[in-house]
Amino acid sequence: MELILDATLGLVGTSHFSVVTIRDIALACDVNVALLYHYFASKDQLIRAVLARALGQVTGDYELRRHAHQDDFLGDIGAWFATHAAMAPTMMSRMVKLMSDQAAQPVRDPELDTLVQGFYSFERTLIVSTLEAGMTSERYRPVSPAKLARFVGLHLDGIFHAAESRGELRIAEDIAELRDLLITQLRP
Amino acid sequence: MELILDATLGLVGTSHFSVVTIRDIALACDVNVALLYHYFASKDQLIRAVLARALGQVTGDYELRRHAHQDDFLGDIGAWFATHAAMAPTMMSRMVKLMSDQAAQPVRDPELDTLVQGFYSFERTLIVSTLEAGMTSERYRPVSPAKLARFVGLHLDGIFHAAESRGELRIAEDIAELRDLLITQLRP
Repeated sequence: MELILDATLGLVGTSHFSVVTIRDIALACDVNVALLYHYFASKDQLIRAVLARALGQVTGDYELRRHAHQDDFLGDIGAWFATHAAMAPTMMSRMVKLMSDQAAQPVRDPELDTLVQGFYSFERTLIVSTLEAGMTSERYRPVSPAKLARFVGLHLDGIFHAAESRGELRIAEDIAELRDLLITQLRP
Repeated sequence: MELILDATLGLVGTSHFSVVTIRDIALACDVNVALLYHYFASKDQLIRAVLARALGQVTGDYELRRHAHQDDFLGDIGAWFATHAAMAPTMMSRMVKLMSDQAAQPVRDPELDTLVQGFYSFERTLIVSTLEAGMTSERYRPVSPAKLARFVGLHLDGIFHAAESRGELRIAEDIAELRDLLITQLRP
């Protein structure tokens, strides 16, 4: 089951998900098509399970890192960056690609949309609350939490997008630059 | 000819270019397939022409705007942002999508790669030289031009990527935020 989800993410993370067939996935997992249909009623349902699992792994990794970032000037935002850097080479890039391919479909899957929106909303909430808490305790200079949260979210998207469209592997470095810039913006 | 290139960009900007056929394009332009093959030997060649034209329109628009940004604190970078904001709703998003779909292909077209690299290198050069000139004249605080150029480039990618993957139309606003942040980083 895990194997199927991993193999599917591998396939849709390298070619477009509209061209990946259930047969391709079965072949990649070395299982038969009937077994795949036993677990998942449709390709849409499989893709949803893949994305839900990936999102769960990202937020799970973040929860495990939060404690270690208590003394980080960026707090939970630092933990979020660390998760992105750690999961970058494989999972994150594939997940970002899947989310964006799905968004570009002429007919969108509302359930998949809800998952994606939930992910962005999780990110926004954690950044905004970290910024608000930091301003209250006067560790951070007054900023607009909503604006800065959007800025950080867009920049993370840009980092993963560029890694793909420019074919570069500089994600950890790019995240470190974003960290530095955010610190200069927040330091009183 | 222009009509064919526009129609193709419209098609590959909304669905994945691997699923768009020469027949789809002919249908969208209301011309026959033979005429299309008269102009373009292959779909690859047509896609290259589409991207080359789009990139030419972007850099052309930028050249026209440079003069008007002489008094802009951000100079040529301001003109580059204005081009992105102006061309955002239609052209830029489709072009960014086409570049990233192409990059995700298992077998990449080296000629298309060269076009894309040329675009990013054009962007990098204009940002770096604006920053260097601004530091020499002491209008800007000392910064690392290469790092900041990459940061700006990644962020623009993120803005267009998010517009697609989050289905939002906030590009002009997001570019204005990037402008503001860059100004705070550069003001002495």
